[in-house]
This record gives sequence, C-alpha cells and structure tokens, in this order.
Amino acid sequence: MKYTERGAEEVKIAYIGGGSRGWAWGLMSDLAENADMFGDVYLYDIDYEAAQHNEIIGNKFNDLKESKSTWNYKAVKTIDEALTGADFVVVSILPGTFDEMESDVHTPEKYGIYQSVGDSTGPGGVIRALRTMPMMEEIALAVKKNCPKAWVINYTNPMALCVKAMYDAFPEIKAFGCCHEVFGAQAIIAAALLDFEGVEVRDRKDIKVDVIGVNHFTWITKAHYKNRDVFPLYAKYAEKYMDIGVQKKDDNWFNYVFDCSQRVKFDLYKKYGYFAAAGDRHLAEFCPGKWYLESPERVKEMGFGLTAVSWRKSDLQNRLARSKRLLSGEEQVKIENTGEDGVNQMRALLGLCPLISNINIPNVGQIRNLPLGAIVETNAIFVDDDVTPVFAGDLPQGVYSLVARNVDNQLLIARSHKEKDLKYAFEAFCADPLTTCNPADAKKLFDEMIDNTKHYLGRYFK
Amino acid sequence: MKYTERGAEEVKIAYIGGGSRGWAWGLMSDLAENADMFGDVYLYDIDYEAAQHNEIIGNKFNDLKESKSTWNYKAVKTIDEALTGADFVVVSILPGTFDEMESDVHTPEKYGIYQSVGDSTGPGGVIRALRTMPMMEEIALAVKKNCPKAWVINYTNPMALCVKAMYDAFPEIKAFGCCHEVFGAQAIIAAALLDFEGVEVRDRKDIKVDVIGVNHFTWITKAHYKNRDVFPLYAKYAEKYMDIGVQKKDDNWFNYVFDCSQRVKFDLYKKYGYFAAAGDRHLAEFCPGKWYLESPERVKEMGFGLTAVSWRKSDLQNRLARSKRLLSGEEQVKIENTGEDGVNQMRALLGLCPLISNINIPNVGQIRNLPLGAIVETNAIFVDDDVTPVFAGDLPQGVYSLVARNVDNQLLIARSHKEKDLKYAFEAFCADPLTTCNPADAKKLFDEMIDNTKHYLGRYFK
Amino acid sequence: MKYTERGAEEVKIAYIGGGSRGWAWGLMSDLAENADMFGDVYLYDIDYEAAQHNEIIGNKFNDLKESKSTWNYKAVKTIDEALTGADFVVVSILPGTFDEMESDVHTPEKYGIYQSVGDSTGPGGVIRALRTMPMMEEIALAVKKNCPKAWVINYTNPMALCVKAMYDAFPEIKAFGCCHEVFGAQAIIAAALLDFEGVEVRDRKDIKVDVIGVNHFTWITKAHYKNRDVFPLYAKYAEKYMDIGVQKKDDNWFNYVFDCSQRVKFDLYKKYGYFAAAGDRHLAEFCPGKWYLESPERVKEMGFGLTAVSWRKSDLQNRLARSKRLLSGEEQVKIENTGEDGVNQMRALLGLCPLISNINIPNVGQIRNLPLGAIVETNAIFVDDDVTPVFAGDLPQGVYSLVARNVDNQLLIARSHKEKDLKYAFEAFCADPLTTCNPADAKKLFDEMIDNTKHYLGRYFK
Amino acid sequence: MKYTERGAEEVKIAYIGGGSRGWAWGLMSDLAENADMFGDVYLYDIDYEAAQHNEIIGNKFNDLKESKSTWNYKAVKTIDEALTGADFVVVSILPGTFDEMESDVHTPEKYGIYQSVGDSTGPGGVIRALRTMPMMEEIALAVKKNCPKAWVINYTNPMALCVKAMYDAFPEIKAFGCCHEVFGAQAIIAAALLDFEGVEVRDRKDIKVDVIGVNHFTWITKAHYKNRDVFPLYAKYAEKYMDIGVQKKDDNWFNYVFDCSQRVKFDLYKKYGYFAAAGDRHLAEFCPGKWYLESPERVKEMGFGLTAVSWRKSDLQNRLARSKRLLSGEEQVKIENTGEDGVNQMRALLGLCPLISNINIPNVGQIRNLPLGAIVETNAIFVDDDVTPVFAGDLPQGVYSLVARNVDNQLLIARSHKEKDLKYAFEAFCADPLTTCNPADAKKLFDEMIDNTKHYLGRYFK
Repeated sequence: MKYTERGAEEVKIAYIGGGSRGWAWGLMSDLAENADMFGDVYLYDIDYEAAQHNEIIGNKFNDLKESKSTWNYKAVKTIDEALTGADFVVVSILPGTFDEMESDVHTPEKYGIYQSVGDSTGPGGVIRALRTMPMMEEIALAVKKNCPKAWVINYTNPMALCVKAMYDAFPEIKAFGCCHEVFGAQAIIAAALLDFEGVEVRDRKDIKVDVIGVNHFTWITKAHYKNRDVFPLYAKYAEKYMDIGVQKKDDNWFNYVFDCSQRVKFDLYKKYGYFAAAGDRHLAEFCPGKWYLESPERVKEMGFGLTAVSWRKSDLQNRLARSKRLLSGEEQVKIENTGEDGVNQMRALLGLCPLISNINIPNVGQIRNLPLGAIVETNAIFVDDDVTPVFAGDLPQGVYSLVARNVDNQLLIARSHKEKDLKYAFEAFCADPLTTCNPADAKKLFDEMIDNTKHYLGRYFK
Repeated sequence: MKYTERGAEEVKIAYIGGGSRGWAWGLMSDLAENADMFGDVYLYDIDYEAAQHNEIIGNKFNDLKESKSTWNYKAVKTIDEALTGADFVVVSILPGTFDEMESDVHTPEKYGIYQSVGDSTGPGGVIRALRTMPMMEEIALAVKKNCPKAWVINYTNPMALCVKAMYDAFPEIKAFGCCHEVFGAQAIIAAALLDFEGVEVRDRKDIKVDVIGVNHFTWITKAHYKNRDVFPLYAKYAEKYMDIGVQKKDDNWFNYVFDCSQRVKFDLYKKYGYFAAAGDRHLAEFCPGKWYLESPERVKEMGFGLTAVSWRKSDLQNRLARSKRLLSGEEQVKIENTGEDGVNQMRALLGLCPLISNINIPNVGQIRNLPLGAIVETNAIFVDDDVTPVFAGDLPQGVYSLVARNVDNQLLIARSHKEKDLKYAFEAFCADPLTTCNPADAKKLFDEMIDNTKHYLGRYFK
Repeated sequence: MKYTERGAEEVKIAYIGGGSRGWAWGLMSDLAENADMFGDVYLYDIDYEAAQHNEIIGNKFNDLKESKSTWNYKAVKTIDEALTGADFVVVSILPGTFDEMESDVHTPEKYGIYQSVGDSTGPGGVIRALRTMPMMEEIALAVKKNCPKAWVINYTNPMALCVKAMYDAFPEIKAFGCCHEVFGAQAIIAAALLDFEGVEVRDRKDIKVDVIGVNHFTWITKAHYKNRDVFPLYAKYAEKYMDIGVQKKDDNWFNYVFDCSQRVKFDLYKKYGYFAAAGDRHLAEFCPGKWYLESPERVKEMGFGLTAVSWRKSDLQNRLARSKRLLSGEEQVKIENTGEDGVNQMRALLGLCPLISNINIPNVGQIRNLPLGAIVETNAIFVDDDVTPVFAGDLPQGVYSLVARNVDNQLLIARSHKEKDLKYAFEAFCADPLTTCNPADAKKLFDEMIDNTKHYLGRYFK
Repeated sequence: MKYTERGAEEVKIAYIGGGSRGWAWGLMSDLAENADMFGDVYLYDIDYEAAQHNEIIGNKFNDLKESKSTWNYKAVKTIDEALTGADFVVVSILPGTFDEMESDVHTPEKYGIYQSVGDSTGPGGVIRALRTMPMMEEIALAVKKNCPKAWVINYTNPMALCVKAMYDAFPEIKAFGCCHEVFGAQAIIAAALLDFEGVEVRDRKDIKVDVIGVNHFTWITKAHYKNRDVFPLYAKYAEKYMDIGVQKKDDNWFNYVFDCSQRVKFDLYKKYGYFAAAGDRHLAEFCPGKWYLESPERVKEMGFGLTAVSWRKSDLQNRLARSKRLLSGEEQVKIENTGEDGVNQMRALLGLCPLISNINIPNVGQIRNLPLGAIVETNAIFVDDDVTPVFAGDLPQGVYSLVARNVDNQLLIARSHKEKDLKYAFEAFCADPLTTCNPADAKKLFDEMIDNTKHYLGRYFK
C-alpha cells in the first residue's frame, strides 16, 4: 500500500471465508463508505463459486454513486494467492457445515442441556472449538508463510479459541478477534438516558465503557457519558426492568439491543453489581445451566431465544437467494452501515483515524487475575500498525470465578488441540457450567457429539 | 511461660469449646505424651458443665504413669479468664447445635442436593459460615483484648471462613487453621509403596508432599519418599483402584485412609493428573453436584458415605456416655496418639522441635493465582514464634478454576458477614457447585435454611 | 457546567499558582483557541496581585478576534473561593522562592555535584519535594472540601511526589500530572523521518509512541508512524548523531527538540536499546552522577546545559516586565499554541474529543515491575470524566533498575512526609545516583540544604 | 545408592574442583562426622595431581577412629567419569588462576575503585562472571549427559551467575548455590542475647531467621529465638555498636562473626531498619562505592578489610604446604566441623534429616518484587529429593532498589554470556554501584580487565 493525498491506496485485504455471505457484504458496504482507503479485496473460500459470486457483488458497489472509495474484488483459488502481500486478513469461516452445528447445538438436548447459541462455550462450543482450531492453525501458518506482517482480524467463533490457535501456531502473528456484542451495552446505556432523562444519544460510541472478561462474557464496571458517570443510570434501568424486561419499540439505530429482553443481564447485575456486556443468548451460556437455560420455558420467561440450527439453515437459504438476486441485478447492492468496527480498525492501524475498541488478544497482564496467555477481551488502543491493551485490572468478586472457569476450560481445550488428545477437552466439557448431567451421561454425550462431527476431527485420531 | 532444662514450663493454653468432647480428649492425650512442655489448660465452653467435666477428665491424665508431662486443667466461666495470659488458644466449637446442622445438611435434600458433610462448602457450608463467623469474630476480639500475642489454632469448620473472620476482626492476630485431611494422602502413598513394592513406611510423615488449595480441597502435585519422586506410584495406584476402590483390610496405623474407597480422588486424578488430598466426603462437595453427589446411589457407587446428622447426634450421645464413664472412673483415660499436629505446632512455635505442616492462613502470595487475602492451605514452616508459608506457586490447569470458584464464594460470604447483608452469601449459595437446582428453588431453599437457623443470625437482620 | 450546541459552557477552572506567569498565559492562549469550551477561570495565587494581573491579561484574550471562545478570568483571595464548584483545577506553583531553588541547585556544587535542573530528583529534587509535598497536601485537602469530583491537573515539580502527596492526602482525588517532555521524543522521530527519507511529518502527534517510566525519565520501546514501525529509524538516527549531537537549524515547529544535542539520550539508547523520552537535562539527573554530570565540561561535551537559578531569576524579571507591558497595553496578548495537552485533556474529559496522552498517576499495575502505589508515567486514555492507563508491561532490562532506584527513593521521601521524619528522605538523598560524595559529606550537605530552606520545612521539626 | 538400616549407602558424590584444597577437606571432615551416609567421592580437577592428593588425604579420614562413616575417595581424569551415576555433584572451582583474580581485584584501584572481595559483584565480579559462566555451562551440560537427576551443589563465585549459567544451559538441572554468609547473622543475634541478657545460645541454628535477597547481599527482616521475636535485640545491638564496632574477644564457636567489626551492617540497619546478613566485606560491595569503599582509610574506619590477592596467593601456598604434610603423614587429618550445610543438605535430600536452609535458586515467585528467573537467595525446605523455596514476599523499601540494581546487572551479564557479546556486561559494569569513575574511564578499565583475562574469554571474541 502507499499513502497519497486521499489517504491509503493499494491496500490489500484478504478475505478468508465469506461463503455464507452475511459478513462479506457488510464489509463491502463499510469499505465503500470510507473515502480514505482504496485497494483490493482478495476473496478466498473453500467454496470457490461462493467467492466468485462475492467478487461480482463486491464490484457492483463501485458503481454506486454513494460509494466513496473503489475496491477491486477478486476471487482466488488458493489461500496463498489471497494472502500474498496482504495488509489485512479478515477471517470469517463456518467451521464445517450447519449439520455439524446441528449436532453441537441440539444433541445435548437429549440430556436436558439447552444452548441458546452453542458456538462459544457449553458442550457445543467445546466440540466446535475442536474442529475449528486446526483450521485456524492452518490459516495462521499460511499467514506466516505469505504475509507475516499483516494484521489478522478474526470474526469466527469460538472467538477465544480461534485466536488462541492462531497465536499457538505463529506466536508473532498480529491477530485479534473482533466482536460487536459490547456495542449493545452502549445502546442500553443510551436507552437508559432516554428513558430517565429524555436525553438522546447521537451515537452509541459516545457512551464510553471499560471492558473486562472473555468474548461473549465481557463485563463493564465503568460507564461514562460526557462529563458524568452513568453507571448508576444503568443500575436504575436494570432495577426498573429486572422483572419485566425491555420490550422492542421501534426501529432506530439502537434497536438491535432489543433482540432480547435483557433480563439475563439485569439479573446478573442484581447478583454481582456489574454490567454483563453481551447479548443475553451469549451470557446465559457462561452461567450454571440451571440459571437461565434450564428449559425452553425458562428461556422464554427470561425473554431470550434458543437459536435453532434449522433457523440458521433457512436463513442461509435466504441469503443464497438474495445472492442470486444481487448477481442477476434483480436486487441492487446498497450501502448500509453495519456498526462493526472492522473497517475502522484497519483505518486506525493505517493511522487514518483514532480508535479505542474492545478486542480479543492474549492476556499479557491487562487482566491481572486471569492466567497469562489466555485470550481475553478488553479495550485496546489502535494506532499506526500497533495495538496495545488498556489496563483493565482485576475481574471483580463473584464475576471472577465465572470467568476463570471459562478461561481454565479454554486452556484445557487448547491443550487437547496441541497434544492431539481429546482427554483435556473432555474434562473441560464436564467442567462446563452447562453440563448439568452426570459424568456417565456426559461421556456418552461427548462421544456421540465427537462421532457426529468426526469428519473434521481426524487430527485427534491419528 | 519459661524455659527450663526440661523444655517449656508454665505454658498456658486456653481451650475454647470442647463441649462435644472428642477434640478436647485428643489434645489431652497428645499433651501428656510429650516430655518437654508443661503448664495449664484453661477450659472455656458456653456449656460450663461440659468444661468442668473436661477439667476432671484432663486432670486424670496426670495420674497415668505413661504421662510424660503434667498439665493442670481448669474450667473457667468467662472467655476472658481463659484467655488472659494465654500462650496458645485452641478453638474447637460447635456453631449452634446439631439441630442447626441438621437443617444445613438435610434441608437441601428436598431439592435433590445431597451433602456428604455439609460443614465446609455447599448450601450447608454457606449457612454454617454465616452463623459461625460472628462467633469467630467475638473470639478474635477477645484474643485482641486479653492475649494479642498468643497463637490461635482453629479446628472449627468452615475452616477458611473461620480463619477469615478472625483476621478480618483483628488483622494482627497470629491465627491459623489446622486440619488433618492431608495426612490421609500421605497414608495413601504409603499404601501404594506397600502394594507395589512391599515397602513398609514407618510413619506417614516420612512421605513428603507439597500442598496447595483450600481446606478440604487441597491438592498435591509432588510427593517424595527418601531419595525418590513417588508421585508416579500414586498414579499407578490410582489407575489400579480407579474402578474398584480400595477396600479396608486391617487395623494398622494408616487405616483411617480406608474410610472411603478413594474413588473420588482417583477420578479427580484421572481428570487432572493431580492428587486431591482430603477425604472423598470432602472432595465431592467441591465439585459440580452431579459428579459425585447426584444421588445416594451414586455416593454408594463411588464408595463413600453421606454423614447423616442423626449419626452425629447418636455419636455425641456415645461421647457423653463415655464422658460419664470417664468421670465416674468406670473407664480409664488412656494415651492414644491422635496423629494430629496441634501439639507439635505448639512445640515448634516454642522452638522445641522443627516442623513443616499444612495450614490455613491468608494468601500473601504463597499461591500465586488466587486472590490475596483469601484463606488458603499450603505447607508452612513453624519455628520459634513464627509461621511462614512455603511458596506453592500456581494451582494447575483445570484444578485452578474449581478452587477459584470456592475462593470467590469464600470472599462473597465474608462480605456478607462484614456488611451484615445476606445478599452476597446468597450469590455464593447460587454459584456453589452443589446448588444444582434452579434460582427460584435456590431462593426458596436459602430462605428456609436461614429461617431454620435464624436464632444465630441476628446480626443480619438488624 | 452544561452542554449546549456549541459544546461545554459554564465550565469552571480553578488555577492555583501562576504568579510566575509563564504557564498561566499559555493556558489562556490554549483556551482561547478552542471553540467548544467556555466558562470561568478563577485565579488563586499566594501573591494576590499577581493573580489580579493575570485576571486583566486573561480577559484581554476575549477581545482578540482570533479567540474562538470566551473565558471570564477572576482573581480571588482564597483557595476555597477558587475551588468551590470547580470542574477542573490546574496546579502550577513555585514551591518557595528562587532563593530556595538556588540552594537546591547550587549548594551541592560544593561537593562536585552538578544538577542540570534540580527540581525532580538529585539532592535538589529531594529537598524540593520535602517542601512541596505539604503544599500539595494542603491543596488536595482543599479540593476534598470544595470540589471533590473535580479533575486536578498538576504541572508542579517534582511531579511524581506532588501527585503522590495529593493521593496520600485524599485517595479519591481525580488528579494526574501532566508533562510535555515526551512530546520532544515524537519530534525526534519526525526529524529522523525528514533526515533519512525526506518525509515531513505534519504534527508530532502523528508519531505514536508508548511511554513507560517515571516523570522526566520515561522510556519509549515502540514508535509507529502511519503503517510502519519507525523505532528502527530512531536507532539509525541515534547512531548517526551519537558522537556529534544534533544541531539546531531552523525555526519550524519541532525545534524545541534541539535545545539539547540529544547526546545523552543517544548514549542511553546505545546502552540499553531503548529511547529515553525527556530532555537531556532531565535524563542526565536520573543516571549515576559520573555519567553525564561529572563536571561542567562533561555537560558541555554532551551538548546540554546546566540551568543556573540566576538565569531563572532574570527570566522571571523578563516575564514580569512582559506582564507590565501586557497590562499597560504596550504589548498585545497573542494566541500562540503551546503544544501542551492540558486543554485537550479537559476537552476529552468532557467528551469533546478523543485523547490518548502520557500522564502521571499511581501505579495500579500498568507497569508490572514497579511497586503498586508509586507515581509512574505511561499513556492513558482520556474519555468522558475518566482516565484509564494503557497497559505498559515491564520496564526492560537495564532500564528497570535505574527507574526502580528512583521509585524506591520516591517512596522513601513520601514516607518522610507522611511520618514527619527526615530520616527516610536522607536515605533517599544518599542513595540518589547524583550523590557521588561520601556519606559524611552527604550528611553535611543535606543538613546545609535543609537549613537553607527551613522556612518551608516546619512540618518536620515539630 | 541404597537404603539400609544404617541409612544411605553406596552414595556417589562427584567433586568438581577442589584443587585449592580448602573446601574439599572441609567436606571430607563433614562427611566423616555423620553416621548415616556412606559411599564414594569421585574427585575431578583440571589439575589431576591435586585430585590425586585429595584422594590420598580423603582416604586417611577412614582411618580415624572418630570417623562415623567410610567414604572411598578416588581421583579421576575426566569429568564424565566423575559424574556417571552420581547422586550429588559438588562444584567448587577456581575460575582461572589468582593472576586473573589479581586483575579483577586490583586493576580498578587505578581509578580509585577498591573492592574488598571482588568475586561477586563490582568490576571484578563482572569480569569473573564472564569467565566463569562458560565453565559452569560446560559442567551443567556434562551433568545433563551423565547424571541428569543428580543434585548439584555449587560453592563457586559469583554464586548467582554460576547458578544462572547452569540453569540456562540445562533448565531441568537440580542445582542450587550454597553459602554460609547468613550463618554469621545468626551468630550476631546470639552475641546480642549474650551481651544484653546473658543468654548463651547453644547452636547458631537455634536462631531462626528469614532470608531475602541475593547471594552476599541477603537481608533478614525477622529473627526468632525460642518463643520470641529477637529482631528488636538486633536493633539494640546495632545501635550500641554502630559507631565503635564489635571487637573480637575470644575463640568460641561464633567467633568467625568478628572477622569484621559489623559497622557496615549496623550502618545499613540504621539506614533501612533491616539486617544485612553477610560479612561486611561482601555487603560493602553492593552499595554505592563512596559509602564504605571510598578509600583504604574508609575501609579501615568501618572496621573491615580489603582482601588482597597477594594474601590469597600466600594462603594457597600454606594450604599446599599443609597438603604436603597431610600426604606425608607429617600432619594428621582431623575431624573439624565446618559449620557448612552441604552435607546436611545431602542428608536431607535423602530423607535422613529435616532441613530448612538458605539457598540460591531461580526466582519463581518466592521474592515477589524481583524478576522471575533471576537467581535469588531465600530459605528453602529440603526434603526427600526435593527443594522448595519458602515464600519470602517483597524486599522492603530502600533495600529493594539496591538489590534490584544488582539483579538487573546479573541479567545483563547473563545475556552477554548467552549472546556472546560483551556489550551488556559492559553496561552492567558501568551501572555497578562500585563503578564510581566516569564512562570514559570505565571503558578503559573494562577493556584492560578484559585484556588481562582474555585467555578465558575466547567465547566472546569468536
């Protein structure tokens, strides 16, 4: 790349994955919206045809008059081709197919274990990690070979173990995991300001929060807006809606907050006095199984949903149909801000804008009471070609051991990957707070889930 | 006290509690067995008659020709009288009566929660802590007033929170908690040496082990005997008996090992590769409820027992009956080594012998990955008027979060005590691994257990 | 204060000190230059007339057509009046007079000890700290009384001990120390870019550096510009100019870099491989006395200067004369950007702009291998009413003990202040790297310097 | 080796070095004095004749009727032969000859730098480390090859860097450094007890002290005797003799205390309130050069001595002459307890006795505020085949940075060894507190000292 008066040009982005379309189109839109970065996006997916379709759709953005920059999209057949000379690598893959995910999410239901997402933690998260880590290792080694100085932005779940696998494979990698779940927390504070004081917050980023924890189970202990501490407002809001939840009302920007009623996070606030900053579907999975996921009825009572894989399958069909319409021109591509930080992170790393945002990287001491080397989530500052975590201190009492439990499991699973031995992963599986069944059943369940997904687990059976 | 050629004379020991007899008689026997320490034992119990009985029984030891030292036992009516000028304070109280303990242990069974002991952790441990901490605070303040430089040895459970309450009330207190559970671990190694190599270990103390964890959930990562690392022998032993357990065979000194089949600890070895060093009845309570305490059948299968409070009540009757026989002379007092370290700890603190033993004191860094200030168990060196922990390092992967979870709860309960607010204790109650019921039931259970024991909980309702 | 469409209005700033004019006028100019903050500046100085003159001069800024905001300046007779309701407190005092400073800086010369500044460390810094800490304590207590939630920005030296005294007096104080010495480091990197690559850096802030150390002895281990790591360029520049130093050439914005030849920092780079980020006059004072301050000749050879207090006195006369001209209208006030971050820090704390800047606050773990509680300098993020340090990690080998030595002395001096006992300060005085004389002479020197400044040291002689 | 009723038999000890006789004969005497350990001592020295002489002398001990055990001494020509199958390895070598040591100790005098020992720190210690580390590396690699499970006891100086070199070469090595300097501290407390209270302490080991620091610069913060804290007695003693020093009076066991007047350690007590636990000749070298080593006059005033290498040379002649007499039978070997802990350490590691003693091993957290991996000195417990450090906590204020400075230099020198680059060692040389000259002179001095000893420094010039 090079700097010009317009900003940065000839930037090369490698996009790994994207066959499932959603994230890829969002990135295209976000790239088009910025006027100071230009270049090429190389698309690599194991489904080459999907990459080709994305190439065509991506290039259509250049024809929009609203587009502020031009990006040349190009599908390639090998990962090496995509990565050679890349400045940024975006990784957003589906590890396996939705059939494997169906096993991850639904097999445990036989034993009364319900999972609202099943991709980060819980029995499903463990199995998914086992099949994803080898893929991430492969990508990290390809980065090492083709573009060792590139920044790698991961969107794939399970976030922590994906990033861990990359650092374990190539310790010098400049990788981080990026997740929008915290943004909803800012929106909730904004909602509280509106509710109690009639204050309209212009942009969720105007609410400043600290972040401490692990991906999808991050916590906020401080929140500020303008010249004041607005954490007490959150407390008031949590108390007001604790029993009834927050209802969806309209369509303005912060509405994605209301995908759940927030009752799980309000209950966690009641317990610990801190603000759990992710969607309730995620939060619930990090707590003892009986708390929020005891049964579909309990889930409903708490105002969130179990995301069935059948829904994901049909949603994918919708996206494929939309892909067809976009390709044929029946539907036009459109610039719609995703609210994601990915493109801004790239811009900040090129020195085009300042940025403080939450990311997932190895713990080097930014969280004092978690093990060094575990992948944790805190704020970080992004500046020219550098990312440095903000000092987050200690996880507070009560919250500490919930997170420590997850991190300990994270390290056990990573050890299984490293030693090619399922033993440690099984211990993590048993120790997972969602595994409410007894050890004998846990063993049967684990074996069945492994068997269901064994096509991707060859590594462990050599 | 003063030093003479015989050793230490005019040593004053205050014994707080002891109405339930067992521990008091053991101490009397251990004191009589040593030839280098002499003095007075002041007996204080809220049941003055019990103290008087112990006075009479204690003084009978002086008449035994096997007694190597003379101790003057004296029942007193006030704690101040017992403590004034004391060199050592032994605390072994029953917090409340067995009726409260009955509630602690058995009320949770309504919700399918079985506890094998119910005095350290689990729902019963939480409630017991709430009523015991104020008593320990009172004792600590009396020590501060009457004998601030005395060493205080606690045997009362829940050990960690008892010691915590004393340090919170009087930070300069020279207190530690003492527990024999680790000794059984040495006996198991001895059994392994006998089993595999025919080696007869003379004394369990000849097996040297490190200790890291919290009381009743301590772990051993190194074991040595003479010039060798015998940890691998433990591994071999655990594997041999993992499925069948160890059967009680005879009556030699290390037989108290066999009170349980050790299957819980062998299973924990299989999981984590380390040696859980307490009786299985205790270990089971620190693990997720479904692992070893799912049902009475599971308990039986794993080869340990649920200690019913009815048994404790009848056992107390036996001790009271024995007390009567000892008083009347129908039965003679007898010197029987208890295997406890209490008297040796006193001797070491007076410079009469060297001693390294496991104790419970605040974490000042001896366990690196647990919070400072929590009460933890490690080895310590006892020398003239001083106790210093051995550096124990980090709890290992997997084990770490099980212990962290307990420690986090410890600190929450201590906060309830400090702030006179049951809220934090309830959060610990919910987060306890034995609390397998859902939050609504947990709340009902907590309220009922509090109500059952409310006579001792006035502090929280002011 | 309140928010309006223009930004923040009715902001109240209390300016404590400023009688020596320089900093006060700079602040006035910086305030005038921003269009989004408006309000009152209350001026308090022990010299009321000086405050009154500043009031008049400050208000003249409002008449400039270049002024983008209006500020009402008002001299007050009591510190309480200045502080009541303040949003920000700026502290920039001269502790004592230049006569005391003359003793600080020049008395040690009798023993061959030369100091280039004498206000931060070295014998002069120790004595200055002893008389300044009580003043800072007084200010902190006044803040506690009048405006406990105000942000306090300190410019007074010795920076670390001034901030320490404030936190020791009022632990909840929202205070930090602010220093521009790091900015010069950015200018040096800019100079290297120009020198080797002909690249003109627009603004020193475009060079992103990490910061770790203590005030006036901060270190940089990473430097980035746009999409690259420019630390290697610094290395090249240091090597090129190591023996000859950098000569002043012209008058563009980064010229204040060339006040010294940079040979001290290049030599420190050679030694340790890191970039010492303060003026050479400061850096030299933190190193063993023989390294750079052995004699005036050595100082000259290394290309920096000894700032004589006689120069400071005459410089003050110049400023007083200028004050007279500004008052009379003979000279016009003028907006000249100072390059300081103070006003931007206020704006960031009000949510008006993003800011990452280096500050001095207590170590809570942002520097892992220095004691907690010591005042250290690192980057921090400034957001709405909150400041959070960036995680800086460990001071690197070699540099570590030079800084640790200073920090240990910092804590000894603070202890003297706290315990009103000169003993610890004397130990710090002896252990200071500039104290090259023997202990007997050190004692004589210390006593003489204390005697010279005893008017301000009553606290220690009660 | 094997265990029998007598204790441990067929123990194999490899003695590396010993050509200078002193330590070797002491070990022979200590071995003979114990009745529970028997076996072989293989003697290896680069001077084979010296080893042969020691073989003959060693075997003469077996003929003494006072000998309680039999040891077969055998000189061997290769280190491999000595090490094969060894249970213990004792390392006590002279790195180079006294000619090199003459350069280490006396060359710096040209620049006014006096060293009282010159083998641990200071300019002499730096150069000595550079030539010793490669030898220790070689020994460690030979241990790895021949007896990786043997315990290695080092007596060679510079202690810290010798042990460091062994661990750097073979991280799994079971090595520690052993030093008697702390024992004198116990003797001083005994002297204080005698002085103030007429109490005769039977054995210096009856005084229990903690130990924290680095070899030859260890500190005591707690001291107990029987049931009391005797640290205050030390304080009283230090104050009494601070100005006059302690005079040698008679010849009882603790007289080696009085080799110096203790004024250095009393002065350090005055400064910091802690007890520096090594001989004054060592302590002085870790402090700024002007404190105690400014001149021979200052040394005399402080009551200690500069150990000239000429004295060492003539002392060696005495030992060689004695060797001749012992060989010829003109003089008889004699059992004289050395007071060293070496043989007891071996016995404790075989499980024959309990032992807590001070040793030098890598910091794993036993000293919290020093870098991990640096070689530090604290107490440790020795049990069957295992050594575990006692938790020593933080070095106290003031003392902290003196020790940190030395440790930082230790790590710099180790880096020079590792990277075969003298650069880092030179920086340590400059930063050493004894290097009171300016950098230009320091460079000349360093170069001259390197040149004087270059025969042993080939590693750095490849």
